[in-house]
Amino acid sequence: MSTAWTSRYAQRTKNVRSSAIRELLKITQNPAIISFAGGLPAPDVFPVERFRHACTKVLEKDARIALQYGATEGYEPLREMIARHTSRYGIKAQPENVLITSGSQQALDLIGKLLINSGDRVLVEAPTYLGALQAFNVYGAEYVCVPSDNDGLRTDLLEEPLRSGPKFMYVLPNFQNPGGTTLAEGRRHQLVLLAERYGIPIIEDDPYGQLRYEGEHLPPLVVLDRENLRRDRGYSIGNVIYLSTFSKTLAPGLRLGWMVAPPDVITKLVQLKQGADLHTSTFGQMVAYEVARDGFLDEHIKLIRRVYGERRDVMLQALEENFPHEVTWTHPFGGLFLWVTLPAGMDSHRLFDAALKENVAFVPGDQFYSGNGFAEEGLRHLRLNFSNAQPDQIREGIRRLSIAIKSQLASLHPEPAAR
Amino acid sequence: MSTAWTSRYAQRTKNVRSSAIRELLKITQNPAIISFAGGLPAPDVFPVERFRHACTKVLEKDARIALQYGATEGYEPLREMIARHTSRYGIKAQPENVLITSGSQQALDLIGKLLINSGDRVLVEAPTYLGALQAFNVYGAEYVCVPSDNDGLRTDLLEEPLRSGPKFMYVLPNFQNPGGTTLAEGRRHQLVLLAERYGIPIIEDDPYGQLRYEGEHLPPLVVLDRENLRRDRGYSIGNVIYLSTFSKTLAPGLRLGWMVAPPDVITKLVQLKQGADLHTSTFGQMVAYEVARDGFLDEHIKLIRRVYGERRDVMLQALEENFPHEVTWTHPFGGLFLWVTLPAGMDSHRLFDAALKENVAFVPGDQFYSGNGFAEEGLRHLRLNFSNAQPDQIREGIRRLSIAIKSQLASLHPEPAAR
Repeated sequence: MSTAWTSRYAQRTKNVRSSAIRELLKITQNPAIISFAGGLPAPDVFPVERFRHACTKVLEKDARIALQYGATEGYEPLREMIARHTSRYGIKAQPENVLITSGSQQALDLIGKLLINSGDRVLVEAPTYLGALQAFNVYGAEYVCVPSDNDGLRTDLLEEPLRSGPKFMYVLPNFQNPGGTTLAEGRRHQLVLLAERYGIPIIEDDPYGQLRYEGEHLPPLVVLDRENLRRDRGYSIGNVIYLSTFSKTLAPGLRLGWMVAPPDVITKLVQLKQGADLHTSTFGQMVAYEVARDGFLDEHIKLIRRVYGERRDVMLQALEENFPHEVTWTHPFGGLFLWVTLPAGMDSHRLFDAALKENVAFVPGDQFYSGNGFAEEGLRHLRLNFSNAQPDQIREGIRRLSIAIKSQLASLHPEPAAR
Repeated sequence: MSTAWTSRYAQRTKNVRSSAIRELLKITQNPAIISFAGGLPAPDVFPVERFRHACTKVLEKDARIALQYGATEGYEPLREMIARHTSRYGIKAQPENVLITSGSQQALDLIGKLLINSGDRVLVEAPTYLGALQAFNVYGAEYVCVPSDNDGLRTDLLEEPLRSGPKFMYVLPNFQNPGGTTLAEGRRHQLVLLAERYGIPIIEDDPYGQLRYEGEHLPPLVVLDRENLRRDRGYSIGNVIYLSTFSKTLAPGLRLGWMVAPPDVITKLVQLKQGADLHTSTFGQMVAYEVARDGFLDEHIKLIRRVYGERRDVMLQALEENFPHEVTWTHPFGGLFLWVTLPAGMDSHRLFDAALKENVAFVPGDQFYSGNGFAEEGLRHLRLNFSNAQPDQIREGIRRLSIAIKSQLASLHPEPAAR
């Protein structure tokens, strides 16, 4: 009987449920539906030819390594490449600071495993990345939520939450998922100083940092943290663990991410990763290395920036032209998402049902809050993805969505004659 | 400072250390050393040409799917293929019973996450697979150890341990790692009956089941369990979760394993896998499917059986010819390993040092015990792998090892003149 199993589930699984987004993505696979729901990269920019050459080369030259067990830390040339690439952003990483993970989702799981005792509090932005909540929930995390605005996390509201003693802060400074907001430079400095003052480390999640479509690159927290520590008391290895991924720049289907951390933290994470999956696919890592090398990744990212930047512009313009003035949205400088705010009284779940009838989909905002007191706030938001659909589909999808919004608005304020 | 992190590590990491085997494998990468230490498949049987064709085909036909995010459950045609293949062994699985994992190591991690509360007891064979202990340790498992002999787990000693209320049993019935033993058919029936009587489920780990070099295939526990349940009280979904992998039949570098379980257990595992790594590499799964399909995997397994069977025979003969009569070993019917027992008083760690001087390596046996009272027992054993080295190397390696053993034996029983 299945109850033989269910009665034996561990305590930690009690809060675990399937991501509503992944369930929702199944609905939206209907090709008649224009979906702004997923966080999918555009398949039209996958560098397929380059992948084909890379596979051939790896299998011709190094099949006995590529198909064999490998080191838990990751494929050494890939770790070196990542260390070199991130150094350009001022993150002075050596290969021994880099751990290759099975997507950055695994990095979040390993961090939960490493740091969270059941009942520990984690400071997160409200809203924040749903997958991080899923990863941390399993380890019994509780949350301290700090609101954000158009300049990202409200660092002016941080001190009281920090005094409550969270285990760490989890922050997405660039083109946040789901908010589409970017943490302003002044706030970055403030955040790093507060982390140091209160002794609360930071997990900096940066999957989209290279996909900027306007404005100047801002320094990552991990860089500011080290500069700060160097100035105050000599070089130190810092309060920040930095995460990134190839999912948004090469291909998510490879499941390749990485963490940059002090060497002794990497050592501990390697031990945990051994127990979790021994190592990430050797073949996948070697293929990614062959695809990315010799400057290809940089050139490819330029292409992605052009394509996604145009799609963002198309969506922003379509919103401007179609949405009623009561509705507002963020203006993302990069990334894959923007965040819509509905007028008070509207309900993004009811809107979702109305939108599906118009054959358009999005993610209702309540998915991105960890619970505590944000239920109503969540219902006033929706997340729109602009990377996956073609420009024409974006225009048409926003037109359809505006029809659904207007009908919901009308039912909020029925005309007197309708009484 | 790194202490900002170390002081924040979760309780569960206190028992986590790097696998001594993985550390040891670094030592043995010296090409002068003949290593029987790892559990590596022979790279000379990797089907490289077939992989090259598979990559080309997947990228030509389905790149937009292969490089994109995929379903957490796994690539549907691969799940169907696994369900079909395992059905031949009597495991009547449907695709919805199959979850693709990032190697079967991830299956062990997900099982720990799903079932183990800190302090729960897990019943294991003594000795058992080190990676399972690593995976379960993180979740705070304690162990109940039951000895095995040449016919596998001593089911005659099971009742008392079962009465102590373990959460589940973890068993490798075929060509066990490290013992090389196979659970006899009568004991399989007994194990399944006892599991039912005491209501203790079984995790059946079967990475090597298809690599049999002599004798007849024995029914898996999952099959006996279902037959048993059907007879007694109608069809039920059973007490057994079954694990296997492509690591020993196609290539470990892909990190592809699977679990077969009742659908509601799969549902829960899928939720946990979402938080752990979203899904296993789509590209890797599609390539494995293309490699394995149309009967190729079956043919390829025949080749592996021939090659490994010969290597096993070579090792057995070399042991017979070289080892002193005080030393005994198991006669594995399949798999990758055999298990050597040293005479009382010898110490496999001291032998390891002596063997390294002769440029030959193995894994000392104490690695494979979970602790409780088996420390001395562990020191009397060593695990030898016969899949990775060529026959000539196996002969030479066993010759070298016998020199080390004889010198250790001599120092145990010094000649009177040496007093």
